[in-house]
Amino acid sequence: MYRRILLGPTNESILDYISSLEEDKLIVCEVLEVLEAHVNELKDSNSIPPHVANEIISEIRILKSDPSPLFSTSSEDVHESIELYMRNKLGDKAGYLALGRSRNDHVAAALRLKLSRLVLEELRVLISLRRSLLSMAKNYLDTLIPLYTHFYPAQLSTLAHYLLYIDEMLSTYVEAILKVLELTFKSPLGSGPVAGVMTPINRERLASILFGGKLVYNTLYASSSRDFMLLLLAINASLMTSISRIVEDLILLSTPYIGFFILPSEHLSTSSIMPHKRNPVTLEVARAKAGEAIGNFVVVASILKGLPSGYNLDLQEANIYAIRALSDTINTLNMLNDIIAKLRVNTEAMARDIYTYPILAPDIVELVALKTGRPFRIIYEEIAILIGECRDTREFYTKVSEKYGISIEPLNFIERPVSGSPSISSTIKYIEESEGSLGVLELKLESINAMLPRGCYK
Amino acid sequence: MYRRILLGPTNESILDYISSLEEDKLIVCEVLEVLEAHVNELKDSNSIPPHVANEIISEIRILKSDPSPLFSTSSEDVHESIELYMRNKLGDKAGYLALGRSRNDHVAAALRLKLSRLVLEELRVLISLRRSLLSMAKNYLDTLIPLYTHFYPAQLSTLAHYLLYIDEMLSTYVEAILKVLELTFKSPLGSGPVAGVMTPINRERLASILFGGKLVYNTLYASSSRDFMLLLLAINASLMTSISRIVEDLILLSTPYIGFFILPSEHLSTSSIMPHKRNPVTLEVARAKAGEAIGNFVVVASILKGLPSGYNLDLQEANIYAIRALSDTINTLNMLNDIIAKLRVNTEAMARDIYTYPILAPDIVELVALKTGRPFRIIYEEIAILIGECRDTREFYTKVSEKYGISIEPLNFIERPVSGSPSISSTIKYIEESEGSLGVLELKLESINAMLPRGCYK
Amino acid sequence: MYRRILLGPTNESILDYISSLEEDKLIVCEVLEVLEAHVNELKDSNSIPPHVANEIISEIRILKSDPSPLFSTSSEDVHESIELYMRNKLGDKAGYLALGRSRNDHVAAALRLKLSRLVLEELRVLISLRRSLLSMAKNYLDTLIPLYTHFYPAQLSTLAHYLLYIDEMLSTYVEAILKVLELTFKSPLGSGPVAGVMTPINRERLASILFGGKLVYNTLYASSSRDFMLLLLAINASLMTSISRIVEDLILLSTPYIGFFILPSEHLSTSSIMPHKRNPVTLEVARAKAGEAIGNFVVVASILKGLPSGYNLDLQEANIYAIRALSDTINTLNMLNDIIAKLRVNTEAMARDIYTYPILAPDIVELVALKTGRPFRIIYEEIAILIGECRDTREFYTKVSEKYGISIEPLNFIERPVSGSPSISSTIKYIEESEGSLGVLELKLESINAMLPRGCYK
Amino acid sequence: MYRRILLGPTNESILDYISSLEEDKLIVCEVLEVLEAHVNELKDSNSIPPHVANEIISEIRILKSDPSPLFSTSSEDVHESIELYMRNKLGDKAGYLALGRSRNDHVAAALRLKLSRLVLEELRVLISLRRSLLSMAKNYLDTLIPLYTHFYPAQLSTLAHYLLYIDEMLSTYVEAILKVLELTFKSPLGSGPVAGVMTPINRERLASILFGGKLVYNTLYASSSRDFMLLLLAINASLMTSISRIVEDLILLSTPYIGFFILPSEHLSTSSIMPHKRNPVTLEVARAKAGEAIGNFVVVASILKGLPSGYNLDLQEANIYAIRALSDTINTLNMLNDIIAKLRVNTEAMARDIYTYPILAPDIVELVALKTGRPFRIIYEEIAILIGECRDTREFYTKVSEKYGISIEPLNFIERPVSGSPSISSTIKYIEESEGSLGVLELKLESINAMLPRGCYK
Repeated sequence: MYRRILLGPTNESILDYISSLEEDKLIVCEVLEVLEAHVNELKDSNSIPPHVANEIISEIRILKSDPSPLFSTSSEDVHESIELYMRNKLGDKAGYLALGRSRNDHVAAALRLKLSRLVLEELRVLISLRRSLLSMAKNYLDTLIPLYTHFYPAQLSTLAHYLLYIDEMLSTYVEAILKVLELTFKSPLGSGPVAGVMTPINRERLASILFGGKLVYNTLYASSSRDFMLLLLAINASLMTSISRIVEDLILLSTPYIGFFILPSEHLSTSSIMPHKRNPVTLEVARAKAGEAIGNFVVVASILKGLPSGYNLDLQEANIYAIRALSDTINTLNMLNDIIAKLRVNTEAMARDIYTYPILAPDIVELVALKTGRPFRIIYEEIAILIGECRDTREFYTKVSEKYGISIEPLNFIERPVSGSPSISSTIKYIEESEGSLGVLELKLESINAMLPRGCYK
Repeated sequence: MYRRILLGPTNESILDYISSLEEDKLIVCEVLEVLEAHVNELKDSNSIPPHVANEIISEIRILKSDPSPLFSTSSEDVHESIELYMRNKLGDKAGYLALGRSRNDHVAAALRLKLSRLVLEELRVLISLRRSLLSMAKNYLDTLIPLYTHFYPAQLSTLAHYLLYIDEMLSTYVEAILKVLELTFKSPLGSGPVAGVMTPINRERLASILFGGKLVYNTLYASSSRDFMLLLLAINASLMTSISRIVEDLILLSTPYIGFFILPSEHLSTSSIMPHKRNPVTLEVARAKAGEAIGNFVVVASILKGLPSGYNLDLQEANIYAIRALSDTINTLNMLNDIIAKLRVNTEAMARDIYTYPILAPDIVELVALKTGRPFRIIYEEIAILIGECRDTREFYTKVSEKYGISIEPLNFIERPVSGSPSISSTIKYIEESEGSLGVLELKLESINAMLPRGCYK
Repeated sequence: MYRRILLGPTNESILDYISSLEEDKLIVCEVLEVLEAHVNELKDSNSIPPHVANEIISEIRILKSDPSPLFSTSSEDVHESIELYMRNKLGDKAGYLALGRSRNDHVAAALRLKLSRLVLEELRVLISLRRSLLSMAKNYLDTLIPLYTHFYPAQLSTLAHYLLYIDEMLSTYVEAILKVLELTFKSPLGSGPVAGVMTPINRERLASILFGGKLVYNTLYASSSRDFMLLLLAINASLMTSISRIVEDLILLSTPYIGFFILPSEHLSTSSIMPHKRNPVTLEVARAKAGEAIGNFVVVASILKGLPSGYNLDLQEANIYAIRALSDTINTLNMLNDIIAKLRVNTEAMARDIYTYPILAPDIVELVALKTGRPFRIIYEEIAILIGECRDTREFYTKVSEKYGISIEPLNFIERPVSGSPSISSTIKYIEESEGSLGVLELKLESINAMLPRGCYK
Repeated sequence: MYRRILLGPTNESILDYISSLEEDKLIVCEVLEVLEAHVNELKDSNSIPPHVANEIISEIRILKSDPSPLFSTSSEDVHESIELYMRNKLGDKAGYLALGRSRNDHVAAALRLKLSRLVLEELRVLISLRRSLLSMAKNYLDTLIPLYTHFYPAQLSTLAHYLLYIDEMLSTYVEAILKVLELTFKSPLGSGPVAGVMTPINRERLASILFGGKLVYNTLYASSSRDFMLLLLAINASLMTSISRIVEDLILLSTPYIGFFILPSEHLSTSSIMPHKRNPVTLEVARAKAGEAIGNFVVVASILKGLPSGYNLDLQEANIYAIRALSDTINTLNMLNDIIAKLRVNTEAMARDIYTYPILAPDIVELVALKTGRPFRIIYEEIAILIGECRDTREFYTKVSEKYGISIEPLNFIERPVSGSPSISSTIKYIEESEGSLGVLELKLESINAMLPRGCYK
């Protein structure tokens, strides 16, 4: 439409190549919300006739309830499509809506709004998953389980302790995500193509409608940077990477060889040729999603790398990766939540390992060193030799008991005297604090949510 | 040393393959600081004899002033090397130092300390660069320069406005980095190999010596996660990507074809065969560093992806990438700071473009639309046709002036009525606020710095 | 369907999360071709009743002309959907088709077939682009243009020489792609889930129908590796990276500041607010596609990294990235071909630079060194000083002429005495050889094409 | 040195930032070999006085035996350092060596030579590893082992079959690597800075000395592309990713839970606090190296992405990643070879699983379907129900035997009638063919090796 006068026609394959119309379906609601706020601002600042503003807003509201007409024509993007639609409906009057704006600031605004919504949803799911973890932990405060290093049974712990490890990991990411949400949820509106607009729109007022009053100040920065997207994807890739470690734990600890966990059967599938198979398919997809999250970040970072400042169409290619990445994470967290909620625990299998692998050895060395006052390293060597001399773990424990007078009662061994250990008191203390912080967090999310526009109707 | 009794000897090539001794040179100071604090804690908690603790601490202090003896033997890592050194010096008594700790928690602590220091240094350099930008901006409040979109002259702005765009970008990253510094600067000490230690060390007291009192609580999380490193690298890759856009601007805007900037000659080199060449080599290296930063993140993320929880030696491979990435960023920011401080500006070349490319056109369309009350899109088409009819930009401006009664005085055109535009008042307002926030930031960094241990002697 | 008996029902959101049905639309033709060949082989090996085989094949052919019924149900994937469809049509007899196969080998086969087709299409487009380059080069054998290093005018060349650089680059990739096509176009059929099948199907015969007789031999390798996909994506990322350098050249050399090229207006767009803009949008999207190609490789590599051998559902997530990556490259090469074919050249602008920048200097230094027999470095320094003393390039050339008796006739300067230089004879020699090799290549592609099955009907 | 006259001095920190001197240590031998061949060519083409050429060559040979003097000064790179050294030794005469060359073509040549050597070494190690695999396979032709899908016991196979899977994977990569070696081992010499040189050097003659006569033809391509490096790194990342899957197998199958393999104790380490630990540390480092290989590719690809054609200093930053990546792969393959050669096999543990998990089920379904002529899917369901009804696998096998008259003799089950299955005849056939192809490959490597220059003296 804009190109017609200046550049003449182009062809379908070129338009297909550069058009974002298909991807714009994912942000059309936000595009319309932004446009509605903009036209309202044009009215409030007396920049266009009020009755025309009202007519345009009526049409925007119709589109908000059903945007499908926008996707039946061929356009560079949804913004052009909206102008074409409006011109059909309102004739030349439609031309008022283009005042005081550019696709650059409006795309940035719609993206910031859409990504803020997705992040908010992600945070809600994270809270829900954390609540599942805390709730499950309460049921397994003294359920013994070995922890691993180098995927080799290492040291005795409790299931609650393992679950709270996941919670603390998630809480770390929640803090980082909240900060980047704050950097994302800011209005670029009024920045025009790159250096601002001549129309006297009130950027602060406009920001208060859509972005809780926060502004990306500099118009070049507002219209053309994608730092918020990069940061969201960077943290997302990190989060999914950390989650993939939990997913790997769940896969490995539920193999029949180990059998600590029994996965809910809804999350398994079988083989079309091997009727005995039980495949942890949701976990496998979740693990793959971490790879996708890393790659999605690389896409956007390498698109942006070395790009001159100011909008370039390269930026358009990045959007779908950002939206997909956050949606994938939300879905993956939901899956994980469902698994955690339904996970069955084989406490016997977990307890069995204490007598199969001498996982009490490290604590024994310390206890002997403390008891005897002799150097740790000397005791370590003694115990190492003792392990080598015993036929099995039970014999080892018996010998330790005889030789050093240390009682081998596993439940005593989790009561390590340091904060953050599996000791029951330490575990309970963490759960209480974490529950408290989740309450605060929920209030915070509610207050951010209240600043968002209402969304579109189905 | 630990493997001797249990596993027998290994060979040089295997030890080379798994040893981190070379890389540990970069964190040896932090390893020794952590160990000193640990031995002090063993003493304070009455876990080892005080006079032995004192002897060990004396040796640690000697190593802090000259750690080179640690690197003359072949060891798995610096921790083993320290134990060997101590055994040589103190005999069996050296064995006391290994109580209540593991390499897992001590490596994590040294890394968190080292990376915190690097981040603090990075933040200092960022502040310095931002001060250079603000200071330069004050000198160019009304220096006209075209801004680009699609690397095509787009809209009139001022050099100050461009410089403040960089400042706002950096301020965004500063906020994200500060948050992740907070997540990094926490003590994992006392978490032992994975599930805590039996020695009654006071984790909170230990944390207060080295990490301002903050704790990574869960011992599995403390000993085995690298989320802090992932997040630091993720944000670093994002920052360097954004910086590479500025670097690209500087390269392109200082080519002889455009000539807005004259790079300081210290930052140029020439050719060994082409005596006329002027190559912006520091900027080119800086641009490449963005690619390295992206790749460094990918290394660490793909190392961690799908790894079972608990320490695995895979983690060791990541460390050097994290340290290198942050050091590269510090060096790059320093280079950029030096360039900004010495950059010469060709104001004539910048002003020239106003009359070469009709970059006032977008503002003209708006002004005419506002003045006439007619729809923007109609005016846009009129102006588009008018541009096409004129031989050159000067003719276009004259015609606009005649036809619409709009005076073409460039300085008026930067006075757009929206916040964050290049208008002089808006620019000054930003500078004042940014300077204020930098003052606050410096105080914050000082307070974090005061929590860090003193470092080692040269 | 398979899970029903063993695992009971699952829910929609889980099925959505693990289902590949949507992505399978892209390979449904290949899935059906593979299945048809398989059922034929079951018949030929007397493994199932011939009339049942024929009935199944009839249904497969109906689906090949319209596969849409397969996508109206909810299934794990298209393979399950086909079985459900067949059971509806044929009842229990449909159960014969599942003999002697697994989804693992059939997915691998369909993917290898689909990717082979895409690669073949890619190679055809590469040939077409190379023909455009060679054809254009013939028209610009002696059209002078400066070449750049460090994006600074460096040395005199011809436009033909620049174009042939692109051709040689593409020829390098063609060789690598052909090799990986060879590694891709191999049959995994008959490898079953992982260790082969008990049904006496003739793998060689089956391979000859679909894959020109080539076999992935080991059944574990055949069913579960994705090396072909990794290699295709790796080379694709490399190719797109190299192409992005050409794209960057075209963008920069067609800015109004340099103006060597005038891009076809179909490939430009303008701004919705800035009527003077000319944005090289197809080139910008093409540049972004290089970032996507790099990221697509990272996705697949990090999905596969550290995955145990044998099929895991993680692999399914990779497919869409591979198909998308190759399709993007085909589209991008087509765009580039269209641009090259329609590119207009501003020979005046290109010639202008010879007298603006002393780009003949490096050749002058050599010529003087050869003429005088004095050391190159000494002459280099003399010329460097001379350049510094002259006001402009013309004066420099005049002084060189006077002082050293060297005639400054640009056309002489492209006649460098080394192979591969812009000298006209060297250029013509290359064009002839490249055209010859393209002829050979086309024959090769035709012969591979003849080995492919016929495809499906619309 | 070159910059002195034109640009004046610079400072240490800038020189540090842009200098490649440290990294050049890794290619100094190749740089000197290239220079020696170049000076010889200058002599042979009568471009410089023969006695000067001889003096320079003498000095180059001295440096080839001890290049350390080149690294004691501060220079931009080793090329500048060599010129400084020569000027000290020979005075102005040293200036002759700079004729007819540029750092651009000489760096490209040294890199191509160095990387070719590393690739050749890599191929030798790959052959050695493949010989170990084939040799081991011969000893385990009928050693039963379950293969996995979804890391769940899937189907019966033999250890030989598993080992040959690795061999076929490596053979795939060998083919790809050989092709890219061919594309790498070509001479860029004579291409000067970008458009060739005026000195009448014979590029073909020079290529025959160092690169077996092969030429990168176009001088712009020769001097400034890094496609060979990108492709090497791309394939390297792919290879290491595939190898990481084998590494993961070895780690998981040697955990005490599964215990199929007993890793050589040289490749294990233990814990400094947990004396019972056995950590597969070389395998863990090898797994991490795959992440590094992926990241190394990303570094180089994102450095090159969007870079204008012609040399830019960005390229310099890539070199170290390429050299490091190939060296890492060589070391990793050597480790793996050592592990394979020393791996102990627990055949009992492997056989045990046949009776623990009903892994014969898929073959049973096929056998019953073939025997009864009934549809596969019907039998599949019958068997699925039967498995569910049995208490354990032995009962299932007994019931199958009774109900369907199928003898459950595991050794019969590996004799599947398809090529590439674990059947002993198929296995032997593969071993013979693979050994044959390795012989051919070794001859090929020898012939390439014979084309390389002799290297430098220690």
